[in-house]
Amino acid sequence: MSRFFSNKFDTLTPYTPGEQPKISNLVKLNTNESPFPPSPKAVKRAAEAAKRLELYSDPTCSELTAKMAEMLGVKPEQVLMTNGSDEILNFAFMAYGDKDNPIVFPDITYGFYPVFAQLSNIPYEEIPLDKDFRIRVSDYIGINKTIVIANPNAPTGIALSLDEIEDIVKSNPDNVVVIDEAYVDFGNESAVRLVDKYDNLLVTGTFSKSRSMAGARLGFGVASKEIIRDLNTIKYSTNPYNINSMTMAAGIGALEDEEYTKENCRIICENREYTMTRLKKMGFDMTPTTANFIFAKHPLVSGLDIYTKLRENGIVVRHFTGERICEYNRITVGTREQMDKFLAVLEKILEDRK
Amino acid sequence: MSRFFSNKFDTLTPYTPGEQPKISNLVKLNTNESPFPPSPKAVKRAAEAAKRLELYSDPTCSELTAKMAEMLGVKPEQVLMTNGSDEILNFAFMAYGDKDNPIVFPDITYGFYPVFAQLSNIPYEEIPLDKDFRIRVSDYIGINKTIVIANPNAPTGIALSLDEIEDIVKSNPDNVVVIDEAYVDFGNESAVRLVDKYDNLLVTGTFSKSRSMAGARLGFGVASKEIIRDLNTIKYSTNPYNINSMTMAAGIGALEDEEYTKENCRIICENREYTMTRLKKMGFDMTPTTANFIFAKHPLVSGLDIYTKLRENGIVVRHFTGERICEYNRITVGTREQMDKFLAVLEKILEDRK
Repeated sequence: MSRFFSNKFDTLTPYTPGEQPKISNLVKLNTNESPFPPSPKAVKRAAEAAKRLELYSDPTCSELTAKMAEMLGVKPEQVLMTNGSDEILNFAFMAYGDKDNPIVFPDITYGFYPVFAQLSNIPYEEIPLDKDFRIRVSDYIGINKTIVIANPNAPTGIALSLDEIEDIVKSNPDNVVVIDEAYVDFGNESAVRLVDKYDNLLVTGTFSKSRSMAGARLGFGVASKEIIRDLNTIKYSTNPYNINSMTMAAGIGALEDEEYTKENCRIICENREYTMTRLKKMGFDMTPTTANFIFAKHPLVSGLDIYTKLRENGIVVRHFTGERICEYNRITVGTREQMDKFLAVLEKILEDRK
Repeated sequence: MSRFFSNKFDTLTPYTPGEQPKISNLVKLNTNESPFPPSPKAVKRAAEAAKRLELYSDPTCSELTAKMAEMLGVKPEQVLMTNGSDEILNFAFMAYGDKDNPIVFPDITYGFYPVFAQLSNIPYEEIPLDKDFRIRVSDYIGINKTIVIANPNAPTGIALSLDEIEDIVKSNPDNVVVIDEAYVDFGNESAVRLVDKYDNLLVTGTFSKSRSMAGARLGFGVASKEIIRDLNTIKYSTNPYNINSMTMAAGIGALEDEEYTKENCRIICENREYTMTRLKKMGFDMTPTTANFIFAKHPLVSGLDIYTKLRENGIVVRHFTGERICEYNRITVGTREQMDKFLAVLEKILEDRK
């Protein structure tokens, strides 16, 4: 760092994104991207928007917001579209965390939460998952702190039920509860249906996974209109012209093609079950995931070893170094062809170990 | 705001972007956009990138950064590409401002600077421009504070010379000096040539104006590699996958077509001189602008009146309410056809007043 850098960032450790290797023919199962291209409607609209880039995008994002609200069954004032869900999560940390309002989240979850807290100098507490990597709901009941929960959680893929989410939200009426639903579309029910009932609930989502738009950066938040107003205050104090006009257009196109999204999700869930069945036969332990990834370890081969050998064979998965999870790898669910290639290489790795 | 909103934002007043009216046939001269479409190379590359949105964009932004560095004659480690120049300006405020390091800027300048300061709870000081709306260089010599100067300044369009910038940078060796060059391409020399000489200089720029990419959100910063490392630390703690892949591709396309950019800038400068000559004949007072906008007031008709009457005739310019500038309007320089339409309506307005 330079000699000028503010000492308020002395303890800031940036997030490490999963690698985006520029190797061709790679089977890329490391960042939970969709194996399917975006909807042709999204592509077409984005290409049209590219021709008019000389104009600023609509800062109110009105057309996309209205479409999103309609799809979710809420009012447009209850929705904020953002530059990826990272942006709305950052806004939520800024808005609802400060020295008097610490933020809590699980010790094993999306690795960005502690970074957002550090960035804004917000005290935070990491609540340990139980021995099966589950969130203990009782740990979050009536704790009077701002709460952030990824549901389903990452990198485990384990989800809380909507009733459990509601218990947490209801028991902390004076604090915002953020439910990060990046992976909700692969077999879970969204907490959006609770936003009219609880004014302290903020549900966030993304177009990166189920809608094949990771490269476009499009996320959103759904909440009471007062919470959305708070987050808009921060948006208009940060980068008012987010979303860029190509992403905005692509988002509209994606929402016009929800059948495509649903069909892709269906295939991914099918491939997940297929892959898990095969992995189980090979002796892998797995968490009961309902996301577009599998979290797996083998009793005989180390997580790092599996990661390294897969990579040598052109298959990239995500390996974490945390104490409790370093024996696991997180494997994004891809196409059937990708999963078969992955499984074949994995079988060979296990065979060689015998 | 909601009852949960952190009181650290009690004094935060968000930025008000210029309106983006959805009226057809409008002559839009209010947000300093280019009247020309983006380079066909930018459009083509963006459309190609839209087909692969399922993958995250390259967080290191390596290809675009290398191209930008080459064009600027610096090393890639000295460049950070950002989500609009608003993003790098916000990062700079975060990195180089805190309770012990106040930030100073002119009292009349880009309206976002005080917002960035408020957002991060950074004390700031606004140094008055002189009676001709000029920055007094002596006010900034050896003041030992973080300094932000738009050059040319907005909404006046008046520029400091490179020697004056150097005097300010040289005399504050222990503080970062940010030179915001959003409008540099319309007749000024960039301070980028000073970054190898001064480790406290950060120059920021944008693709919004001269490169016709306001809707894409693409900005950049150039500095010592240590400063770029600081700003990267904040980037990777905020939204690592900025820039989105369509904007990244469009940026590469724009840099492949610098002739197109130069020719557009040449025409805009020509139209600026043409319009100013005509405005002078109508009795307008104007600042000596070297940007893609004109800052003008009339001795007989109020600024608000001119703004309102223009709007009634389908021409939108920007009117500010600040005490010293409320008699002025800021008029973006468009095509010759747009300027002729603007001038004709203006002549009619003045005639009706007689």
